[in-house]
Amino acid sequence: VDEFEAIARLFAPLAGAEPGALGLRDDAAVLAPPAGREIVVTKDLMAAGVHFLADDPADLVARKLMRVNLSDLAAMGARPWTYLLGLTLARPVDRAWLAKFAEGLATDQAAFGITLVGGDTTAHDGPTVLSLTALGTVAPGMALRRGSARDGDTVWVSGTLGDAALGLRVLRGELPRLSTSARDYLVGRYRLPTPRIDLGQGLVGLAHAAIDVSDGLLADLGHVCAASGLGARIRVDRLPLSTAAQEAGAGATAAALAGGDDYELLFTAPDAAVTALGERLGIGLTPIGELRAGRGIDLVDAAGRPVPPPPSSGWTHF
Amino acid sequence: VDEFEAIARLFAPLAGAEPGALGLRDDAAVLAPPAGREIVVTKDLMAAGVHFLADDPADLVARKLMRVNLSDLAAMGARPWTYLLGLTLARPVDRAWLAKFAEGLATDQAAFGITLVGGDTTAHDGPTVLSLTALGTVAPGMALRRGSARDGDTVWVSGTLGDAALGLRVLRGELPRLSTSARDYLVGRYRLPTPRIDLGQGLVGLAHAAIDVSDGLLADLGHVCAASGLGARIRVDRLPLSTAAQEAGAGATAAALAGGDDYELLFTAPDAAVTALGERLGIGLTPIGELRAGRGIDLVDAAGRPVPPPPSSGWTHF
Repeated sequence: VDEFEAIARLFAPLAGAEPGALGLRDDAAVLAPPAGREIVVTKDLMAAGVHFLADDPADLVARKLMRVNLSDLAAMGARPWTYLLGLTLARPVDRAWLAKFAEGLATDQAAFGITLVGGDTTAHDGPTVLSLTALGTVAPGMALRRGSARDGDTVWVSGTLGDAALGLRVLRGELPRLSTSARDYLVGRYRLPTPRIDLGQGLVGLAHAAIDVSDGLLADLGHVCAASGLGARIRVDRLPLSTAAQEAGAGATAAALAGGDDYELLFTAPDAAVTALGERLGIGLTPIGELRAGRGIDLVDAAGRPVPPPPSSGWTHF
Repeated sequence: VDEFEAIARLFAPLAGAEPGALGLRDDAAVLAPPAGREIVVTKDLMAAGVHFLADDPADLVARKLMRVNLSDLAAMGARPWTYLLGLTLARPVDRAWLAKFAEGLATDQAAFGITLVGGDTTAHDGPTVLSLTALGTVAPGMALRRGSARDGDTVWVSGTLGDAALGLRVLRGELPRLSTSARDYLVGRYRLPTPRIDLGQGLVGLAHAAIDVSDGLLADLGHVCAASGLGARIRVDRLPLSTAAQEAGAGATAAALAGGDDYELLFTAPDAAVTALGERLGIGLTPIGELRAGRGIDLVDAAGRPVPPPPSSGWTHF
């Protein structure tokens, strides 16, 4: 059994539920698009040493890879459908790592109702690079966009912000005074984000604009503002912080504003129906400010006084 | 202008023709599937030092990346539709290389009628890794498969075989006695394969099984045989060799049998209509043997005597 065959055996079961995957043994997958739906497609990479740490558990790496892509589908209001995988593995190939990686995929396939339909595997003399292409579906014309926010919209975020950036700092040994439970919580949020799939679909027809918070609130809200031709005013005292993040003190607000990797949804909508949706889904939804004519993002406190932005205003890729 | 923005500016024009790409500025693309078609999707990787050489011209690397994926669509009989790109670039990022890379994509987008709709870019401390996901469409139920060959089918190949493997040997300095024109031809076949898009679509409803020759004739015919539960008998003297490959002497037949990267189509069909199709498309189509009950591939000469297989019987990924 050569490596090629071994990998085929590891991944073939992940495609079992979808006949169009052709057992991952043909040149491509053949998929019948669900009737009356548009197709939403996204592709996100994760490189060892950049987006994950070489000793992160392989099953969690797999699940994070899937979830960052599902988060993009969520931000469009899409329902997950199928995915393809591209693995460029560090030589020598670690079969045990790969088996654990496949286990992680199986876990999240079941959790999110998505099936592997194709991909490619190779090995090279360099760090492992993972690529995933996720396909979803949405009702025609109903995908959530980032450029369709309106003057006067309230800016909402789901869940809590800043946890993942703080979790990464914990892994780097930078927050030794936090309680064990806080450290575990924050690391968990970094390693295993929760894509807001149900929320995204619930926001279809309700939110005017949506984006997932992957680069950091200021960066991602900046994308919404730029694409919509609007400015925003954000109440820093209203940023939703987890109990664990609050233990980190002043760093928590900076992480909530500029830290990436939380994969919560940021969306803009008129107020009315949003609270009811959050209650139905059991997800905390927090209004943190509003959009208005103009450019740029103003940060203010409860009394409306300006708050200085944190030194780093968002993840950049280089 | 940070690197992120610079790359956005380089690639945004490639998405201009497709409104569903949303200017590459949203979380995902939103595509209306062509009415009455199934979707064919494939994803192939190319890593520097494995699938291309670090000093290969960037525009040709881009076009090869696109073409190996289009070849998978061709092997399914699909019409190209859209694609996504995943770039993990070696640090420091070479902006000139990237601009040339984008030029190559633009050239082949025009040649093959395909549009960029999304993707992801990052950089790391390692060799450049390129990933492409190609989407195509096909009439429902009509995709060409590798597992549906029938006992008695003739085995056909398009074009000539072995050129790409010999081209790689030329680049490694292993074939110094070849004429300059032969060397240029073979290197060109290695760097810039021709995906048989028109042929693939022409074979829909005509061929019983098809695959592209990416791993080498023996390996890829082996996939067809295994998937179809059949054996094959191949006339080694009938393998189509280019004039340039014939200059290489005995090595040409070994390259035609075991060398990969030619991206010709191998297909099985009853004889009748195939020749007319080749003439209509102006592509050489050569019958090289037939399928029959049993297992494995027998190589024979013109007199039916056994021919030993070459030492390496196909590209393996590790």
